[in-house]
Amino acid sequence: MAHSSAHLDPARNGAPTTTSLRYELLTLGDELLLGLTANAHLTWIGAQLGRRGVQLQRNTTVTDEAEAIVALVRESWARADVIITTGGLGPTCDDRTREAVAAVLGQKLVFDPQIEQAIRARFARFQRVPTANNLKQAWRFERGDVLPNGNGTAPGLWVEQDGKILIMLPGPPNELQPMFTEQVIPRLAALGKLADHEAYIQIRSIGVGESALETMFECTFSRHPGLGIAFCAHQGQVDCRISSPDGRYGMEKLRAIASECAALLGDNLLCFGHDSLAQVVADQLKLQGRTLAVAEASTGGLLANAFAELCGACKFFQGGIVISNNEAKTLLLECPECLLKQHGAVSAECAVAMASGVAEKLGSDYGLAVTGFSGPCTGAGENPVGGIFIGLHTPAGVWAKQLSYPGPRAAVKKRAINDAIDWLRREALKESRRIAAPSVN
Amino acid sequence: MAHSSAHLDPARNGAPTTTSLRYELLTLGDELLLGLTANAHLTWIGAQLGRRGVQLQRNTTVTDEAEAIVALVRESWARADVIITTGGLGPTCDDRTREAVAAVLGQKLVFDPQIEQAIRARFARFQRVPTANNLKQAWRFERGDVLPNGNGTAPGLWVEQDGKILIMLPGPPNELQPMFTEQVIPRLAALGKLADHEAYIQIRSIGVGESALETMFECTFSRHPGLGIAFCAHQGQVDCRISSPDGRYGMEKLRAIASECAALLGDNLLCFGHDSLAQVVADQLKLQGRTLAVAEASTGGLLANAFAELCGACKFFQGGIVISNNEAKTLLLECPECLLKQHGAVSAECAVAMASGVAEKLGSDYGLAVTGFSGPCTGAGENPVGGIFIGLHTPAGVWAKQLSYPGPRAAVKKRAINDAIDWLRREALKESRRIAAPSVN
Repeated sequence: MAHSSAHLDPARNGAPTTTSLRYELLTLGDELLLGLTANAHLTWIGAQLGRRGVQLQRNTTVTDEAEAIVALVRESWARADVIITTGGLGPTCDDRTREAVAAVLGQKLVFDPQIEQAIRARFARFQRVPTANNLKQAWRFERGDVLPNGNGTAPGLWVEQDGKILIMLPGPPNELQPMFTEQVIPRLAALGKLADHEAYIQIRSIGVGESALETMFECTFSRHPGLGIAFCAHQGQVDCRISSPDGRYGMEKLRAIASECAALLGDNLLCFGHDSLAQVVADQLKLQGRTLAVAEASTGGLLANAFAELCGACKFFQGGIVISNNEAKTLLLECPECLLKQHGAVSAECAVAMASGVAEKLGSDYGLAVTGFSGPCTGAGENPVGGIFIGLHTPAGVWAKQLSYPGPRAAVKKRAINDAIDWLRREALKESRRIAAPSVN
Repeated sequence: MAHSSAHLDPARNGAPTTTSLRYELLTLGDELLLGLTANAHLTWIGAQLGRRGVQLQRNTTVTDEAEAIVALVRESWARADVIITTGGLGPTCDDRTREAVAAVLGQKLVFDPQIEQAIRARFARFQRVPTANNLKQAWRFERGDVLPNGNGTAPGLWVEQDGKILIMLPGPPNELQPMFTEQVIPRLAALGKLADHEAYIQIRSIGVGESALETMFECTFSRHPGLGIAFCAHQGQVDCRISSPDGRYGMEKLRAIASECAALLGDNLLCFGHDSLAQVVADQLKLQGRTLAVAEASTGGLLANAFAELCGACKFFQGGIVISNNEAKTLLLECPECLLKQHGAVSAECAVAMASGVAEKLGSDYGLAVTGFSGPCTGAGENPVGGIFIGLHTPAGVWAKQLSYPGPRAAVKKRAINDAIDWLRREALKESRRIAAPSVN
């Protein structure tokens, strides 16, 4: 757990690649511990720092009790170089972070008329007057800076003391995120506390199990002692990250090792880096000048959203149809009633009718459909829980596939979506090859 | 941070309501700290325990390094009564939790042929043979139990030692969740380590700011010294939880206080407890025997999913249409092209056409539509980023509303969805009143 003093590792390839600083994130709030709100700040801030060569060393969530916060800040202050806190800066009685941090740092809180003014101005813009508790947010550390909040009333706070940095951010994501990217990142970078890119290479694979993947890469990895290796499996996809904790391999070398792994993966390679499966498919389709439409009967809009949320989605994604019952299948997709009656709404025949139906309806080249039971709550039927059919309509033909997963509803949905999109990816790959070498097939 | 010895508080209303045991959750994995995977285990386990009167006192996430895990388990073991760990039980080289915990507890790891058999049987079911690294998962503590894993290869582990309990769970949610509900919860309950219901009452409000809500409830709360009060704001919705940390108020009294707050809220009361906004609307519509369909052009399927993911959704939710471009609006909703040309795709006129279009198309009583720009990546247009129109078609008429939000894309979408569904909720409330008192309006 020991770490060297605060500075960036010297660059091995011209630019600094990593930092030896110890960063910790303290996320405050009973609502996180009671599972009422997801700890999205860890994911978001962790990723922002990761892109700048920093791996958070620890994230701790504690209750809103003042003693719990004081104890945590004390521990963390003794251990870390840079501490980021989120939450507990709000106007209500359970917001106690400011006072707790002041106690640990031996700082005085002072009332800042400039913050008060900003709060009043913000309320005035919405034709409202701040209540007394809002003005609690106008207190700041005597020796520290204020990070103005363009999207809310609680400003962030910045303290440098004893060679360490403590940054306090408001809890709401729409306030925290712009403050972090616009103020915190540039300031940390200016102080030399961030690198300019990631410290690892990520290889995303799909269709290979975690242990099989490790076995596949073993021979390559064993030739590189000291390589940092980590695997992360999620719903059919396994990511492998390689890094050089002791700095013996530069980014160029890491890239070469990653390429060797990629060659072993073949079509099971999704990408290097962080692109989602849907993004990879989107890039393929845009390159081919092809379009896509989706129809879904058990994933409730999540399949459409995988594509719709991408930048520039309208360039290839025509839209989607979310179906809740058989009537809608007939009304929206012109699935013949007799087909539904004969084969059932969860059948290969229905998946094919949905995929072709939505592609025709929206005039798209590809149509992707999911129909099935994603687990308890979908009503009893002759199909087993987790029984799913996916249908795929492509310029080369239309097919269906049956899948079956155990596990909770949300996992089944995610898995079905991943498998459906991966099928599309593999067929689009074939299509690309057909285009590139028309005489071969 | 001090806590009494391990036992449940005596019941104030017949049944135990809370526990004074200190629970901690340790979530392991670089991928969490790098923001590559959301810390969903905190949210899920926190909620499961919360429903049984337990509030997690702390959640800590550390890296996969053995020393970091050892340090964390040592700290936590000194402080907590019940420790739950997730992750690091997998087959690959970065899975080091078992060894770290054994070191701290002074336990020996032994190879368990029964676990090996279960792993081999699981692989055989998929016509595969385990690789050598898979058998790493067959090691367990010498003095401890095994929690069989029906959905994966890594079993959970259970240790009771020094009056404390340590429970190790595998990382994948589809393995962890069934193991937790089917094995861990019953076993903890049998040992008297859980209560039989929540220790707090939650009042969900919508349409009132956090500080305004506190001011509204102040008078009620001030008459009840020692009341535990917490607020949590999320995208237009504010939850207030009340509890009795020192036990002076029983659940009946807490319910009475919550009712007083509810009366102050009027139509801004969403519900007591944990129902989502969509669930509240679903219950209203089912009671009225009304149906709903949605059309969305900037929320990409998330509006549909809010309803589709509910139990029994097919009873009131007819389906949804996800639109990516103007062509789809015309094709799927028969939005007149001239309307789109004259007023634009992001306009009150278009929102109305979408809401009525989808309701007609699917034969539903209510139609809800969202169209707009949810922020960067949607392409430049004359409408400001975050400018959204919602359209609502009801048995009593059809209207549109313009909304405008600052902030990041994901927050804008969530906010637009909440506001759209809340508008439907308020109109459905009016409709219920019209039905109940037909002569009044």
